[in-house]
Amino acid sequence: MSTQHTRRPGEDTTASPDARASSDWWSTAISRIHPGEILLRGYPVEELIGRIGFAEQIWLLLRGELPTPGQARLLEAALVAAVDHGPQAPSIAAARMAATCGIGLNSAMATGAGLLGDTHGGAGQQCMQLLERIIEGESAASIVAEHRARRAYVPGFGHRFHPRDPRRDPLLALVRQAIQEGDAQGDALAAGLALEEALAGDRPKPVPMNIDGATAIIYAELGFPAELGRGLFVLSRSVGILAHAWEEQQSGTRIKGPLPRPLLPGYHGPPPRAVPPRPTRDNRDQRPS
Amino acid sequence: MSTQHTRRPGEDTTASPDARASSDWWSTAISRIHPGEILLRGYPVEELIGRIGFAEQIWLLLRGELPTPGQARLLEAALVAAVDHGPQAPSIAAARMAATCGIGLNSAMATGAGLLGDTHGGAGQQCMQLLERIIEGESAASIVAEHRARRAYVPGFGHRFHPRDPRRDPLLALVRQAIQEGDAQGDALAAGLALEEALAGDRPKPVPMNIDGATAIIYAELGFPAELGRGLFVLSRSVGILAHAWEEQQSGTRIKGPLPRPLLPGYHGPPPRAVPPRPTRDNRDQRPS
Amino acid sequence: MSTQHTRRPGEDTTASPDARASSDWWSTAISRIHPGEILLRGYPVEELIGRIGFAEQIWLLLRGELPTPGQARLLEAALVAAVDHGPQAPSIAAARMAATCGIGLNSAMATGAGLLGDTHGGAGQQCMQLLERIIEGESAASIVAEHRARRAYVPGFGHRFHPRDPRRDPLLALVRQAIQEGDAQGDALAAGLALEEALAGDRPKPVPMNIDGATAIIYAELGFPAELGRGLFVLSRSVGILAHAWEEQQSGTRIKGPLPRPLLPGYHGPPPRAVPPRPTRDNRDQRPS
Amino acid sequence: MSTQHTRRPGEDTTASPDARASSDWWSTAISRIHPGEILLRGYPVEELIGRIGFAEQIWLLLRGELPTPGQARLLEAALVAAVDHGPQAPSIAAARMAATCGIGLNSAMATGAGLLGDTHGGAGQQCMQLLERIIEGESAASIVAEHRARRAYVPGFGHRFHPRDPRRDPLLALVRQAIQEGDAQGDALAAGLALEEALAGDRPKPVPMNIDGATAIIYAELGFPAELGRGLFVLSRSVGILAHAWEEQQSGTRIKGPLPRPLLPGYHGPPPRAVPPRPTRDNRDQRPS
Repeated sequence: MSTQHTRRPGEDTTASPDARASSDWWSTAISRIHPGEILLRGYPVEELIGRIGFAEQIWLLLRGELPTPGQARLLEAALVAAVDHGPQAPSIAAARMAATCGIGLNSAMATGAGLLGDTHGGAGQQCMQLLERIIEGESAASIVAEHRARRAYVPGFGHRFHPRDPRRDPLLALVRQAIQEGDAQGDALAAGLALEEALAGDRPKPVPMNIDGATAIIYAELGFPAELGRGLFVLSRSVGILAHAWEEQQSGTRIKGPLPRPLLPGYHGPPPRAVPPRPTRDNRDQRPS
Repeated sequence: MSTQHTRRPGEDTTASPDARASSDWWSTAISRIHPGEILLRGYPVEELIGRIGFAEQIWLLLRGELPTPGQARLLEAALVAAVDHGPQAPSIAAARMAATCGIGLNSAMATGAGLLGDTHGGAGQQCMQLLERIIEGESAASIVAEHRARRAYVPGFGHRFHPRDPRRDPLLALVRQAIQEGDAQGDALAAGLALEEALAGDRPKPVPMNIDGATAIIYAELGFPAELGRGLFVLSRSVGILAHAWEEQQSGTRIKGPLPRPLLPGYHGPPPRAVPPRPTRDNRDQRPS
Repeated sequence: MSTQHTRRPGEDTTASPDARASSDWWSTAISRIHPGEILLRGYPVEELIGRIGFAEQIWLLLRGELPTPGQARLLEAALVAAVDHGPQAPSIAAARMAATCGIGLNSAMATGAGLLGDTHGGAGQQCMQLLERIIEGESAASIVAEHRARRAYVPGFGHRFHPRDPRRDPLLALVRQAIQEGDAQGDALAAGLALEEALAGDRPKPVPMNIDGATAIIYAELGFPAELGRGLFVLSRSVGILAHAWEEQQSGTRIKGPLPRPLLPGYHGPPPRAVPPRPTRDNRDQRPS
Repeated sequence: MSTQHTRRPGEDTTASPDARASSDWWSTAISRIHPGEILLRGYPVEELIGRIGFAEQIWLLLRGELPTPGQARLLEAALVAAVDHGPQAPSIAAARMAATCGIGLNSAMATGAGLLGDTHGGAGQQCMQLLERIIEGESAASIVAEHRARRAYVPGFGHRFHPRDPRRDPLLALVRQAIQEGDAQGDALAAGLALEEALAGDRPKPVPMNIDGATAIIYAELGFPAELGRGLFVLSRSVGILAHAWEEQQSGTRIKGPLPRPLLPGYHGPPPRAVPPRPTRDNRDQRPS
């Protein structure tokens, strides 16, 4: 990422030290906004519009340089693949509920993105960290053994719903094509396949790679750090979140709960009981003397 | 949008009425998720991966059908244009702060999206509503007069920062090209230009269209409802939000406030004062007898 | 609210204009934070701890002065009343889902608070606005007629669940007691009862005041502006949101959706279909020459 | 926490298994909501209103039983102490910005709560975990040594702003009083003081307990699990967040960024550069044949 510091000629030289401190406090290498000028990673925005695609723009802002066409295509395929998994996903359900509560679509989208935490949205990022460990020399078998010892899922593999995730094969085929065309190295793919094999090893049923595993391979092949794996997943899933929030909003439902009427949430707390007599409240000034 | 109801042969026919009610309560036309199957608007996801771009996927999920290539290009240009406007935008600043507070990037993105409310993210949507009114016959002059009478900004025009928004011209050029190629009608463009002219009318300085106005024209030309104008803006700006949150997170700053040290927020409340003696608290059981 | 501007002797006099501008930009009348000092509305925090209750602290921060004991009791009763309405409320359900997604309890609480929008959390605020109109001379009957003409609910009255909200009577009894003891004027209570009567007028079934109406009366009697009615409701309901998020988190559920397995959300979109052949993508550089 | 399962006589016995599954999926021990009935932890809400304070209600919902008056007072003091730390705290600054963006106060509150993550809001929770380890036998000195070895802060001690946190002493005095009156055991206080002493040990300057440490002691003495330490802090700080968001909203500022005009965020990215010629986009259908 470029870190070259640029000041426009004559800029800021007369600014007070405090003004400069405030300006530096919020300094960024991503964009320069001056009256009449918007530079994104150094490129004037008006030169980018109409010339690069949305996936290329995403790459540019996150990485600082433009991708090759092959890199952009691979990134785009991963973004296309992960947009939605239906209203049973809590991120989608919560965004749909939000859309019935009298808040804007931006707030419904915030609700959905907020739920893509370590458990619901973090498997790709965690899988990328495992791929890195394998690329650095650790064995897939030992990683699998370690997860099994603590009864943990290996992130990026298996699906509680799909016996085989339909997004796995087309994504891996594109990774292979990118390797062939020189847009990817293949080490993350090899690491992912090694994990899949180690997981299947002694099992009657395989535990095939899921969307998180397949996109983790793509993002790792493309050189993204693991944290951005989460970020890219959130960008992609935000499309489904928006589509669902909007569909729900159009239905006109108000204050939608999880269950249809007349079903009610159950209760397993104490039976009805009387409030015990409360002792007289002391003087609120209770400070020890 | 397709609303045809489909049940797979044999599906659900034996389900209890309550199961069906629960299932219907969350029914969607966007996606069907069955074991081993993900249909998006009817298309198997594995057929979409590698075949359509991210902008086309966004269109498909929001609209129900695939766009023409020209429509996809125009949508993509609008998404490319609005990704970032620097850390002085509160959505970006808040997301950068969030990234220093020990929450995931998904939560930082939620923070930023949440701030794109009626004032900070709604101008495009509001401009689309004005364009609709003009397309339906109202005059641009009367709309401008109405806004001036209540001292309100006309959404989509003018910028408190840019004398002329550098994104206006290239976006409008692409709209004109799309009209020429049959991918847009031109009525929203005409409406927007009429508004711009009416605003300039009697003024020494013009009030040119800004990014919200230019993208409002694009989204309206492409047939998106106004509410989705906001949604598309949030999708686009989420890219900048992610890039900034990630840049800040990498810096290692912890608990970043708006001002650099040692500057402190000012105070204009009462001067230091002593807490007055508090009366004895009554018995908390204060219910009237 | 006090607006007296105070500078400590000698403070800031040597600061640069830019430092002062930055400091003033974030100036507040709520708190002054200096090394070793925390003033809240002028009171040293160490003098408040142990001397005032939580409801009094809420009042102090929002209003700038301490309440009388009777005012504090009435505020406290309203805060006690609205803490929870079970997991079918979308704010609670979304927070419970959030707690299964691998984010902190603070993010689960943010999820719940975010859903308390105009529809789900705004009725109290809207009811306060109606009470103000009646206090300023409008008739309850005309307000009811106006709502009926546009088939709108009168906010604060009726409940889709409770024939009679059990929180109404004890809250109104406390308002009456506060009036008797000089801590409230009674005009908001009179306005609310007039609305209730106007609503019942010609109907077989009454439409009794609900929690939003009863707390709207309390907050209006206590002099809170309508917007803070929403804020106080969010504070109160945040208690239930926290309790439910925590209960769900303890259960160990992961990625909880709205329906129990094996129920699935229904689908009413197009049946499975093949992706049509996509036309060759043009050169991405599409800018008109 | 009570887990006794109660069904009303005759309730649900005729419900279908699917209805029961849906109901059980959302079952809770916190509240039972039936037409005309709201039970909170078994108590009818109408019996609680006017009889218990807000802090007692918080305790009841989180713990399942009512506190003693001494427990309620100690909890209340902790809630009073942590409400605000001024606009330089990112949670407060972000909420103030949010209030200028055209979203409701509930969304501004969600913004603030969302930022109280592991770093900005988690020190109390983390400190409680350390107190537990000491109570279970670990030595304070070894915990301090462990943190120093990895150059980590000991959560709950020291303050980057206050040489001595003014909230420490009055809170600890109330803990001592509670111990004397039998409402607390004293083991968490002893653990906290041991940590403070171990930290001071060989240092020229002490590293005194801060608000997070002092409230961690209180919440631990009162038997709250560490996770709820975070939750209670968020409840308390939500008061300040609301007060600040409301103050900012009243000012009428629109789209407030972190810096006052005309200051601008700095830029240290690449200097202006031309977009390189983009290669012709291939056919989008890139799937390997």
